Amino acid sequence: MVRKIKKLQRGVSIVGAGMSQFGSFKDLIGRDLLSESFRDLVNSVDKGLDVMDIQSLYIGNFSTEMFEGQGHIGPIMADWLGLTPRPATRVENACASGGSALREGINAVASGLYDIVLVGGVEKMSSLSTEETTDVLAMAADVLYEVPAGFTFPAIYAAIAVAYLDKYEVSPEQLFEVSIKNHMNGSLNPRAQFNSTIGEMMERRVSRMVPSPVTNPWNDEREFLNDLSVNPWVSWPLRLFDCAPITDGSACVLLVADEICNFFTDKPVRIIGTGQATGPQLNTAPNSTSLSAARVASLEAYSMAGIGPDAIQIAEVHDCFSIAEVVATEDLGFFKEGEGIEAVKDGRTSLQGEKPINTSGGLKAKGHPVGASGVAQVVELYLQLRRQAGLRQVANPNLEFGLAHNIGAAGGTGVVHILQRE
Amino acid sequence: MVRKIKKLQRGVSIVGAGMSQFGSFKDLIGRDLLSESFRDLVNSVDKGLDVMDIQSLYIGNFSTEMFEGQGHIGPIMADWLGLTPRPATRVENACASGGSALREGINAVASGLYDIVLVGGVEKMSSLSTEETTDVLAMAADVLYEVPAGFTFPAIYAAIAVAYLDKYEVSPEQLFEVSIKNHMNGSLNPRAQFNSTIGEMMERRVSRMVPSPVTNPWNDEREFLNDLSVNPWVSWPLRLFDCAPITDGSACVLLVADEICNFFTDKPVRIIGTGQATGPQLNTAPNSTSLSAARVASLEAYSMAGIGPDAIQIAEVHDCFSIAEVVATEDLGFFKEGEGIEAVKDGRTSLQGEKPINTSGGLKAKGHPVGASGVAQVVELYLQLRRQAGLRQVANPNLEFGLAHNIGAAGGTGVVHILQRE
Repeated sequence: MVRKIKKLQRGVSIVGAGMSQFGSFKDLIGRDLLSESFRDLVNSVDKGLDVMDIQSLYIGNFSTEMFEGQGHIGPIMADWLGLTPRPATRVENACASGGSALREGINAVASGLYDIVLVGGVEKMSSLSTEETTDVLAMAADVLYEVPAGFTFPAIYAAIAVAYLDKYEVSPEQLFEVSIKNHMNGSLNPRAQFNSTIGEMMERRVSRMVPSPVTNPWNDEREFLNDLSVNPWVSWPLRLFDCAPITDGSACVLLVADEICNFFTDKPVRIIGTGQATGPQLNTAPNSTSLSAARVASLEAYSMAGIGPDAIQIAEVHDCFSIAEVVATEDLGFFKEGEGIEAVKDGRTSLQGEKPINTSGGLKAKGHPVGASGVAQVVELYLQLRRQAGLRQVANPNLEFGLAHNIGAAGGTGVVHILQRE
Repeated sequence: MVRKIKKLQRGVSIVGAGMSQFGSFKDLIGRDLLSESFRDLVNSVDKGLDVMDIQSLYIGNFSTEMFEGQGHIGPIMADWLGLTPRPATRVENACASGGSALREGINAVASGLYDIVLVGGVEKMSSLSTEETTDVLAMAADVLYEVPAGFTFPAIYAAIAVAYLDKYEVSPEQLFEVSIKNHMNGSLNPRAQFNSTIGEMMERRVSRMVPSPVTNPWNDEREFLNDLSVNPWVSWPLRLFDCAPITDGSACVLLVADEICNFFTDKPVRIIGTGQATGPQLNTAPNSTSLSAARVASLEAYSMAGIGPDAIQIAEVHDCFSIAEVVATEDLGFFKEGEGIEAVKDGRTSLQGEKPINTSGGLKAKGHPVGASGVAQVVELYLQLRRQAGLRQVANPNLEFGLAHNIGAAGGTGVVHILQRE
């Protein structure tokens, strides 16, 4: 039997979206964060939402056991939001947990089981030290064959970067452009963990220097990023500013069956494509400059949507590291292999470019609460497609199609969703 | 809007089922266990299965992070089974992870996304000490309000037992009947962790005594269970033999769309009802002798199936503790409140009774690898409904309807599935 790409039995739309402030919040726990994004979602529904109408919950989360000592967060969260006895299920696919939770929410509506489903993502990460957090995240890699060899995630993506830089003769410094772009976008997103441009960060450093201004050692933001005293190596060729931060945060979206979406809004956003795939662990991957799971997932999503990469006008991609965004834009077919890095440099993926990527600031500047990131990507697309993205709203008046690309580990899981405004 | 119980958009059948040996296997890891149940499943498909036809995987698992230091097991398992790049998603709902994974598999077929889906459950628990394992399992309770008060799971179910015994004037010793019945069934299940009756266990103890036989202190199995030297208190009024063991094991089932099930078998088993619900944490539950999540989930499943509890001829229920089976049979409507304990004593739920419960041996004797248990319940029903259950096959020649009841924590999650043989 051959796998045929199908349409869903029932159409599914997004009619509400919310997110918490992203950042490092010592006094908040996961329940607080999810409550904050849920309140934001409730307020986002144009024609109002009686929360008692929600019929089921999916929660994307990577490792609340390790971060908070709490498992079984489906019912814990349902209880906290006042939604007991509605069913609640936790979905875990490492950093793609949010994307996979969305997919389960879609299936729960498309199957006919429910009409109104809440999909949330949450991660509370700042409770552990950076070293401990790095070890927890490494559990998403293969603990038999990768972790014992020293492959934490910075090292894994550094290996991908080495392969890419070597293959296409790119210097590590060219990766700065991803971070500069995403911080520029993040500076326009009030909920971003880093709500400032690289230039603003540089100026703040300068303003704190004594004596001032003669000690200013940097002429521009690229010189600033090249200074190892402010941007040290994490795992060569990746530096601190190539890495997404450790983040506390939550996001959620409200899914409903197409036929009832006008009860909630006249401006729903349709889910027209969903794809998910697994890829080999890095230790057996035949190609280190592409994540096959992202390619397979995107082909499935494009096929279901009936459109190709050229039709996508805006995308949120999984930039857990700068190199990951570059590879993502190639895996998704936006640019040819080896051309992703040039596209960033040329501004083609900037807010004013032909194909804005990570207008939210991406994982790099908005922040990366791992189980929430896949949902937060969709929140950004929802806002952009409905022209509610504030200062970072893309100008294109014909904005119609957006894509979210969410990765677990180094391509163990790839999840792609394609959205269309009505 | 009022929640209406619906039919699935597309019917879903089970056409294959497998399980690993259950037990304590120091040399095996989760991947080995899932591979073993998968091989068993492949061999179970009447007309053969080309494993390349499998389109998607769901894996129920509670806490591989804590037990094996490995997260993100969806793609790890897909890779290990040779199924990359098929999508794989881990579903976690504590001890109901298996039941919830089955439900996601059903949705994935009913939504139209896939035609052939593998649902597995796995847990490797023996890597930690009993004390450590108890602490890991306690993460399924509320770590803010329950665990700090000393509520590990034996204590939580002991509280339920105290309430039940007090309310219905039952002695702790009457709970022995659950364990005696389930060990009797387990003695007929070659894959059970405890493949022996309580009587056989007693005889083995006697045969090892010196001098023999004058030291035999027990006249029968109830006297044996009443002896604190062999059956000590774990958490009053629950003793060692009231508790399911710590188990390594795996189970899986193959789901397909109804319209293609005859490619695989002429004897499929239909999924005619699925229900899932959350319940309050024990610290806020209004009633300690019933789990509301199980009641809500079963009402949903009965409604979808169009039958009631009287039509169910055989059931696997979540007997993590002896009291849990008694409460389950009442929550499911098999017996009136307070009559579940009498039903066991009267043999109504034995293999020869009117409504055999836990013919597999249940979690008590078959074993309880927590993320696998919900799937293993369905494996048992599949075998019974197809008359392949060997020595423990129920005699009823008109066996048609079976029910699986899977609980996470102390009723935080309840999942119920109703099956019908064709």
